[in-house]
Amino acid sequence: MNSFGEKFRVQIYGESHGLGVGIIIDGIPPGIPIHVADFEHDLSRRRSGHMGTTTRVESDVPEFMSGVFKHFSTGAPINIFFRNSDVRSQDYEDTNLLPRPGHADFVAHRKFLGYNDYRGGGHFSGRLTAAIVGAGIVAKKLLHPIKIEANLSEIGGHKNFEDILALTIQKNDSIGGLVNCQVLGIPIGWGEPFFNSIESMISHLVFSIPAVKGIEFGSGFGAAKMFGSEHNDEIISMDGTTRTNYSGGINGGISNGNTISFNVSIKPTSSISKPQSTIDLKTGNINSLEIKGRHDVCIALRAPVVIEAMTAIALADLKLGYEI
Amino acid sequence: MNSFGEKFRVQIYGESHGLGVGIIIDGIPPGIPIHVADFEHDLSRRRSGHMGTTTRVESDVPEFMSGVFKHFSTGAPINIFFRNSDVRSQDYEDTNLLPRPGHADFVAHRKFLGYNDYRGGGHFSGRLTAAIVGAGIVAKKLLHPIKIEANLSEIGGHKNFEDILALTIQKNDSIGGLVNCQVLGIPIGWGEPFFNSIESMISHLVFSIPAVKGIEFGSGFGAAKMFGSEHNDEIISMDGTTRTNYSGGINGGISNGNTISFNVSIKPTSSISKPQSTIDLKTGNINSLEIKGRHDVCIALRAPVVIEAMTAIALADLKLGYEI
Amino acid sequence: MNSFGEKFRVQIYGESHGLGVGIIIDGIPPGIPIHVADFEHDLSRRRSGHMGTTTRVESDVPEFMSGVFKHFSTGAPINIFFRNSDVRSQDYEDTNLLPRPGHADFVAHRKFLGYNDYRGGGHFSGRLTAAIVGAGIVAKKLLHPIKIEANLSEIGGHKNFEDILALTIQKNDSIGGLVNCQVLGIPIGWGEPFFNSIESMISHLVFSIPAVKGIEFGSGFGAAKMFGSEHNDEIISMDGTTRTNYSGGINGGISNGNTISFNVSIKPTSSISKPQSTIDLKTGNINSLEIKGRHDVCIALRAPVVIEAMTAIALADLKLGYEI
Amino acid sequence: MNSFGEKFRVQIYGESHGLGVGIIIDGIPPGIPIHVADFEHDLSRRRSGHMGTTTRVESDVPEFMSGVFKHFSTGAPINIFFRNSDVRSQDYEDTNLLPRPGHADFVAHRKFLGYNDYRGGGHFSGRLTAAIVGAGIVAKKLLHPIKIEANLSEIGGHKNFEDILALTIQKNDSIGGLVNCQVLGIPIGWGEPFFNSIESMISHLVFSIPAVKGIEFGSGFGAAKMFGSEHNDEIISMDGTTRTNYSGGINGGISNGNTISFNVSIKPTSSISKPQSTIDLKTGNINSLEIKGRHDVCIALRAPVVIEAMTAIALADLKLGYEI
Repeated sequence: MNSFGEKFRVQIYGESHGLGVGIIIDGIPPGIPIHVADFEHDLSRRRSGHMGTTTRVESDVPEFMSGVFKHFSTGAPINIFFRNSDVRSQDYEDTNLLPRPGHADFVAHRKFLGYNDYRGGGHFSGRLTAAIVGAGIVAKKLLHPIKIEANLSEIGGHKNFEDILALTIQKNDSIGGLVNCQVLGIPIGWGEPFFNSIESMISHLVFSIPAVKGIEFGSGFGAAKMFGSEHNDEIISMDGTTRTNYSGGINGGISNGNTISFNVSIKPTSSISKPQSTIDLKTGNINSLEIKGRHDVCIALRAPVVIEAMTAIALADLKLGYEI
Repeated sequence: MNSFGEKFRVQIYGESHGLGVGIIIDGIPPGIPIHVADFEHDLSRRRSGHMGTTTRVESDVPEFMSGVFKHFSTGAPINIFFRNSDVRSQDYEDTNLLPRPGHADFVAHRKFLGYNDYRGGGHFSGRLTAAIVGAGIVAKKLLHPIKIEANLSEIGGHKNFEDILALTIQKNDSIGGLVNCQVLGIPIGWGEPFFNSIESMISHLVFSIPAVKGIEFGSGFGAAKMFGSEHNDEIISMDGTTRTNYSGGINGGISNGNTISFNVSIKPTSSISKPQSTIDLKTGNINSLEIKGRHDVCIALRAPVVIEAMTAIALADLKLGYEI
Repeated sequence: MNSFGEKFRVQIYGESHGLGVGIIIDGIPPGIPIHVADFEHDLSRRRSGHMGTTTRVESDVPEFMSGVFKHFSTGAPINIFFRNSDVRSQDYEDTNLLPRPGHADFVAHRKFLGYNDYRGGGHFSGRLTAAIVGAGIVAKKLLHPIKIEANLSEIGGHKNFEDILALTIQKNDSIGGLVNCQVLGIPIGWGEPFFNSIESMISHLVFSIPAVKGIEFGSGFGAAKMFGSEHNDEIISMDGTTRTNYSGGINGGISNGNTISFNVSIKPTSSISKPQSTIDLKTGNINSLEIKGRHDVCIALRAPVVIEAMTAIALADLKLGYEI
Repeated sequence: MNSFGEKFRVQIYGESHGLGVGIIIDGIPPGIPIHVADFEHDLSRRRSGHMGTTTRVESDVPEFMSGVFKHFSTGAPINIFFRNSDVRSQDYEDTNLLPRPGHADFVAHRKFLGYNDYRGGGHFSGRLTAAIVGAGIVAKKLLHPIKIEANLSEIGGHKNFEDILALTIQKNDSIGGLVNCQVLGIPIGWGEPFFNSIESMISHLVFSIPAVKGIEFGSGFGAAKMFGSEHNDEIISMDGTTRTNYSGGINGGISNGNTISFNVSIKPTSSISKPQSTIDLKTGNINSLEIKGRHDVCIALRAPVVIEAMTAIALADLKLGYEI
């Protein structure tokens, strides 16, 4: 199932080298202003064109196929479509039978019995995150004045990125990164104890972003090394303010009024120009594969706005569907 | 919503100091053998009574309220009930208006407008994990011969636990821990690209376990520091076997035939005997709170079987509902 | 799946001759008063003991297994259980292999591979409507001051029932009936165009009541014979009041502010004392079957309160989950 | 929510006078052949152009926006789009504030606070049934060799339609009709007792077709007048064949192996050229309205293929998601 949410429901579709990618948002109240210009800022953050990103550059102009009338949401499903234009499918003909290490090629081939659109990863492509960012922009409008801010905090373990990026490019390699995301101004009481905790909803969506390997809220993996007397956040005000924020703004799966904070680990881009071994699905032989095509050196550079979008989708669903 | 799953659907209910806790499993095929004795092993792993665990000991005998006939599943919903017996509610009368730091008391009071059953955390209590373990046992039967094995790997950062546990008890404190979980023998092709990746499904459920602060699959947070040439798992056989397993057995959200491996960070038990500051919800004053009641020194000791259960529930849903 | 609803979600469980039947209601806001006494009126309407109803009489006292604390809903799932007491299972041992005509015995045996609890129809029994009435009572509380009123309008085609009932009893036969249900005071705007129209939601649930064969809203089957100039309801006031109400209070699947009205056809009770032919599932021979056990002469007598309950559940879900 | 289904999930979108209408089908297995030509037959049955149907004629060529590669389903979501072309929106500018009797104009205006796309009924338009027929064609492929056949059985109460149609056209009026639908070759065991009976699933979808007022399965409303000894279908063979078929092929919500049969009542087209009274939403005055635009005299003429499509969608979901 390529959908998520009970009330703010998103249904994603499309392929990297097909007609385009898109998303339907169902459950949007009427009267939300929707203009193409509102989408430019976040889409440009996701778009490539900077050092360390692919040279495939899509214009990413959203087409509203339904649900928008006279520049407002109507209450009917909004279908946002991003047409593919800068497509060089011939780069990918090889990957059909030579699955790229780290990619979904092998599992897609097996799961879908060879019928999958393998060009550029097809439906598994990072290209689909354009649609996610589109839905995130609408979700952020709903969540106003709550603020969601994700930023890259490390690349390859370094907080200052330039040298490590340059080195990676020079080596024809790729590199991982770490993103921190904060949600400011969220009211007390969102989330459900079992099984729709805020962490459950956010992690569910964040782990659907290609390349995500881990997520931690508040103290995260540090909590495993701490004593309770250190970790407990003492409550110091009737509005729920705590002295520390090891909980990351969430107790029992419910927002406690403090800032929600979480970290996301992004693996290095799987596509690298170096030769790698893989299996030939036709012959069963191990072959050497050099990946052509245009790729990001560090996909984490483009991840923060996608993580914001997923967080916004999770919270919009909690807001509309579960708020009491 | 206190339910999860499309096909293997669980609906949890109950409170720590009410009549009991339970879970309904809907979607179970007929003909699965169900005996009380099958539940003993996993329930005893969750149960307390060892060093570092609470002195509240429940017998945890499952009652099958429906869906089981002549010791087999009938195909109708199975309702598994665990009656509460060893209840000392008077310990908790205070917590109604003096929310315990690190607990859900404050958010529950606010979200449910003061109507929540606050005794022992009510519906937010770790007591409900008995029901989850119960459902996990049924899920494991469905998944046979797939094996799910979770083990405690660290307490307080130590791989040898005894000294740190003894120290923590002596200090009237509590301590966090780390659990590793492995899924062996899972076929290729389970999981969905958007939005029901295997990581999405497992993390959704694992983050509904009280005290979980982080989860990482395969290389996890280490991936953020790695080069692509290190991280990519080369495919060396037609059955999908890879030379390394940084992916943790999953590509594009889909099982790739290798062992699934993930780590979970568990925070220290929030209930500690040391005095802590909190707000008095009646007066608005900051008060000192000494938590009475019986508590675990290290809740991570009891977590592995709960993590196994949640993993089994996620995979049973993928098996029944999504497998093609 | 034995659940329904997005926001006011019900999960039914139990069997006719097992421990009992019950229902979990998830999504109930906190602070709704819940007393056993509130359930007496509707449960007594469903209960047998009158002319034309079975001599099996259950006391039907609801047990609140969870979600109720100090006589109020807590916001956690409410599990309402009705213990079985007046059970004579030996009456049903035969039906395992001699499926009763008109009943679900044959399909249950085949669908569940012989593992189904066949005693008294097991999970298919009308006994489960006690749980539905229980959930309906809670739903009605949520819908206040909307009124839902169902009444028997015909038995065997007669508006005056006594003679036809007496005749049917005398013939050891059973008889069908017609129920009309009205919803008064529903606001404008509930329901969704595709696919959760009010008619869709109500019919979905009403067709899960055993013995229902048809449903029609407003003009219903009469509409197939009408001209548009007769059928169209002219709008005569800003509050949506129409001159006629052929639409049955619904346009485009959405409530229009007028009274919702629909009819439900109930077939004659399938269990009759007369000998009937059926197949012997063991031998394949056609056998004559005389049904023992205690049965209703006209199940439609007990149906109105069940139809009210289903209507209330559908509308409570629309109110909580979809209202804007 | 404009979606339906657990496993064969459809998400509809679009408006009568916007860019077009469409539907996403999620859950389709890979390898189903999908050609434009496969859609022609059913779409032409829905299309107008015959006596008694509107003069708006759309070409209805499906565009596969995603999920189809080299003429096969890939396993990813299939987005089928029907572009609008023959649009005369100026006909509808009036209807924004003069709601047409029998239409959804009034409720749409109120529910969506005036933001709805009112042109031609917008998202409520019968135009969306093109998308439903599209999804139905895919569903029928999945259900092969099960056959679903719906036919018009009466118009205005007449089994011979020509005279009554001519009369209605002459009177500038519209007229209702009755459709019978049969499902042949369905295996035993589809459907769920609570709450996804076959009748529940089919009626849920059929009542989302504009103009449907009633549905009855097997004996339907006749059952309310029958004795049990007449109504019970005696089982005469191990494959479940019954002597009669008053049950309409379903017992306890489950298919019993016999032909499923149901009737659907369709109201007369709401748009008629005769003057009608309605409220002016701006002034509150009662005005006379003459509806311009192009309309069907008898919408029931075009309904059978839409009813088939909805039935196919319901059964495809039961097949993929619930079958055991």
